Amino acid sequence: MERIRTGEVGQHVGERVRVAGWLQSNRRLGGINFLVLRDGWGSVQAVAESEAELAPLAESEAGLESVVEIEGQVVSEAQAPGGVELHNLQIEVVTPVKEPTPLPLNKRRLNAHINTLLDHAVVANRHPTRRAILRLASGVMSSFRQTLTARGFTEIQTPKIVASATESGANVFKIGYFGRDAYLAQSPQFYKQIMVGVFERVFEVGPVFRAEPHDTTRHLNEYVSLDAEMGFIENHFTIMALLRDILADMIETFRTQYPAELELLRVELPVVPERIPHIHFSEAQELIFKLHGVDVRGEPDLSPQDERWLGEWAMQQYGSDFLFVTGYPMRKRPFYTHPEPGRPEYSNSFDLLFRGTELVTGGQRLHRYEDYLAALEKANLPVEPFEAYLEAFKYGMPPHGGFAIGLERLLMQLTGAPNVKLVTTFPRDLNRLTP
Amino acid sequence: MERIRTGEVGQHVGERVRVAGWLQSNRRLGGINFLVLRDGWGSVQAVAESEAELAPLAESEAGLESVVEIEGQVVSEAQAPGGVELHNLQIEVVTPVKEPTPLPLNKRRLNAHINTLLDHAVVANRHPTRRAILRLASGVMSSFRQTLTARGFTEIQTPKIVASATESGANVFKIGYFGRDAYLAQSPQFYKQIMVGVFERVFEVGPVFRAEPHDTTRHLNEYVSLDAEMGFIENHFTIMALLRDILADMIETFRTQYPAELELLRVELPVVPERIPHIHFSEAQELIFKLHGVDVRGEPDLSPQDERWLGEWAMQQYGSDFLFVTGYPMRKRPFYTHPEPGRPEYSNSFDLLFRGTELVTGGQRLHRYEDYLAALEKANLPVEPFEAYLEAFKYGMPPHGGFAIGLERLLMQLTGAPNVKLVTTFPRDLNRLTP
Repeated sequence: MERIRTGEVGQHVGERVRVAGWLQSNRRLGGINFLVLRDGWGSVQAVAESEAELAPLAESEAGLESVVEIEGQVVSEAQAPGGVELHNLQIEVVTPVKEPTPLPLNKRRLNAHINTLLDHAVVANRHPTRRAILRLASGVMSSFRQTLTARGFTEIQTPKIVASATESGANVFKIGYFGRDAYLAQSPQFYKQIMVGVFERVFEVGPVFRAEPHDTTRHLNEYVSLDAEMGFIENHFTIMALLRDILADMIETFRTQYPAELELLRVELPVVPERIPHIHFSEAQELIFKLHGVDVRGEPDLSPQDERWLGEWAMQQYGSDFLFVTGYPMRKRPFYTHPEPGRPEYSNSFDLLFRGTELVTGGQRLHRYEDYLAALEKANLPVEPFEAYLEAFKYGMPPHGGFAIGLERLLMQLTGAPNVKLVTTFPRDLNRLTP
Repeated sequence: MERIRTGEVGQHVGERVRVAGWLQSNRRLGGINFLVLRDGWGSVQAVAESEAELAPLAESEAGLESVVEIEGQVVSEAQAPGGVELHNLQIEVVTPVKEPTPLPLNKRRLNAHINTLLDHAVVANRHPTRRAILRLASGVMSSFRQTLTARGFTEIQTPKIVASATESGANVFKIGYFGRDAYLAQSPQFYKQIMVGVFERVFEVGPVFRAEPHDTTRHLNEYVSLDAEMGFIENHFTIMALLRDILADMIETFRTQYPAELELLRVELPVVPERIPHIHFSEAQELIFKLHGVDVRGEPDLSPQDERWLGEWAMQQYGSDFLFVTGYPMRKRPFYTHPEPGRPEYSNSFDLLFRGTELVTGGQRLHRYEDYLAALEKANLPVEPFEAYLEAFKYGMPPHGGFAIGLERLLMQLTGAPNVKLVTTFPRDLNRLTP
C-alpha cells in the first residue's frame, strides 16, 4: 500500500491507509494507547486497542522518535486532532529508538532550558513549535523572492570570501586563503550595488558573517540576510515604498499559507498600513523632547528608549506597528550613504521601526564616481581596496538604493521570541559552533 | 513622463515614451546616430537625426555606459532590433561616463581575454551575453526551488561556519573564530541529513567552500550548491527519479522563460528522457572492456575517458545526453554512503553523466546509528567531532538520500562554456579574490 502524508488522512475516511514518520507520543489511557505519528508536514493520531497491535513496538523496544510505518482504518473522531484517527493498526518499525530523547518532544510546549535546546537543536528542531518557526523562515524567504521577482528583480549570488575587510573594517572573520589573508563578507552591500549596474534590480538571500564579540539575545555571528537593491530611484522613499510592499506580502503569505504555524506559536500578525508613517530624524528628536521632556536633540543616533517612545507615538498617532525614521545623520551612516539634498549633515537613509525596535535599515547610496572618491577621503579610507567596487561607479551608475532584512531578527520580532537564537536553525554565537 | 522598460516600448507605437538605462552603443552612419540604450532587462534602439538631439551627450562629454534617459517617438521599423525604435529624441544625461570602458561592451560578442574579463567582471557582467548567463543562473535556482517546493520540500539555511573539518578532512578553509579555529562548510551534507529528521524533505541553495589548490577550467574555491535530501526512500533510485524531474523542469523553464538568452548564447538544450538510462558501475567497466578493449575492471573509479565512452554509448544506445552510473565502489565514496544490499563492496550511489561528463553526484545514506558507528570505525575516524550529526541517527532516521548540483558546473555544461569561471558572477580561485 502506498504511503500517504498525515495531512491527507482526512480524505480517506472509511478506508485503510498507510502513513510513515516518527513516533511522537504514546499515551496509555484506560487500556487504550493513543499514538501520535509525526511526518514531515504534520501528525495524525493512531489508536491501539490491543496489545497485539503494539507488539512490533514492544518486540524491537521502539520508544519515542522511533521511525515507524502504520497502516490503519481511517475513522472520523471529532475529539482527535484534525478530526480523524487510525484504528486497527498494523505497525512496522523502520528504525527503533531505545534511548529517551535529550529533551521531551511529546509535550505541546518545548519546555527546556535554552542551553539544552540549543545544545540539542538537532533533535529539538523536530518539535512542532520549532518546526513552525523554521517553516515561517522558509515562508519569509519565498515571499521575499516572489515579491521582488514580480517587480523585475533578478536573484544574484555573490562571493562570501572577500579580499579585504572594507565595509566597516572591524568585526570581520579572517580566513587563511592559500597563504594569504581573506575575510568573510559582512554583507553583500558592495556586490549588490555593483550588480545594479548589470540588472538594475537585484536581490540576494544568503549568509552574512559578523565577528561581533557580543553574546546577547539579539546577536548572531552568522545570519541570513535578505538583501535588495534597485536603480533609477527618486530617493530613499522609493525604497521605503518597496519595503512596505515586501512586508505586506510577507504578512499576507503568513496569514494565508501558515495559519497552523501562527496558531501554534500564538503569533498576532501586525497590519502593514497602506502607507507606513514616516518622521525625519530631527523631528523625531524634537518630538521626544516635547512629549517626554528628554532633550536628545543633537545626538547622532536614537537610543533604544528613543525608539520605544517613537513606536508608542506611531501607534497612538497612526495606529501603526511600523514607523519609518528618515534622515539619520551622515556621521553615523556608512561612507556610501547619499546625503540629504540641501541638508548634507543628514542622509537619505531610513530605519524601519517595528513596535519600537529597529527592524530594517536602508537608504539611497551615492552613485557618482567623484562622490565616492570624496566620501572615501572624508572617511580617511584608502582608495586601493575599493578599486573593483569603484569601477562600477566609474562606468556609470544610476541613483540607487536598497536595504537588508535580517531573517532571524525579523522572525524574532514577528513571533515575539525572547532570543534570536530561538528562531535560528543552528545558531552561531561567541561560544557556540555546534551543532 | 513616467519611465517604461525597453521591453515595453513595442506596446506604444505612435506614442512618445521615456526610457532609461546605459548608453550601450552609438554608431554614426550616413549622418544619423544609432544609439542603443540598455536597461536592466533589455535594450532599444534610438535614432538621432540632428546634432541638437545629441547635444546633451556632447555637452557633458557622455560616452558609452553613461546613464541616460531618453524620451522619443515610438516608430515601427522592421530592421531595428525588436521591430521598434525611438525618433525625435530628447536625451537627458543622468551620469556621464568620460573614460572608455576597460573592455568593449558595444559588440555583439564580448571579445576579451579571459583575464581581462575576470579582472573587470564588474563591467563585463553588463554585456548582454554575460547577463544572459547570469539570468540562466537565477533561472536554475528558481526552477530548482519550485520543483522541490511543489513536492513538499522545505527550504533550509544551514551554518557555513563549522566547528571541525569533518566531512572530508582535507581542502577546508580555516577561520579564526574568537580565539579558536573554525572552518568553512564544504557542503551542507550533514545539516541537510539532520534536517531530514525534521522536515523529511529539504533543500538548500547556498555557497560552499573548497580549499582545493587546483587552478583548472573546472574548479572554483567557492560555488553555489543546490542541495536536496529526502527521507522514506526506497533506495538511490527514488533520488534519481527526483533528480530527473528537477532537470526536466529546469530545461523546460529555460525553454519557456529564457528563449532570448538561449538564442544569444546559442545554447542547444538537451532533451531529458522520461526515464534516464542507467548502468551499474561493474557493468560499465565490462562494457568499456567489450567496446574499447581497455580493461578497467577492478579500478575503483571511472576516468574522464571512461565517462566519455559511456556518454557516447548512452547516446548511441538510447539517444540520451544523460546516463546514470550506479553502484560506485564503497571505498571511493564517503563514509555515510549506504552499501548495496547483497554486494557491500558496491554502494547505493550514483553519478549522473551529461554528454560524458559528471554533472551530479548523489545516493542513499546510512540511516542507522549503529551503522554510522561502524562506518566511522572502518574509516578510522573518531566519533567525537561527529557527535551532533550522530544525534540525528541516535534518535531515529528513515532511509534517506539526496544529491548536490554545482550551479556553475551545471551552467558550464549546459551552455558549453570552456571555463567554469566564465559562468560565475565573481569567481574565486587559487589566485583570484577580487572583484
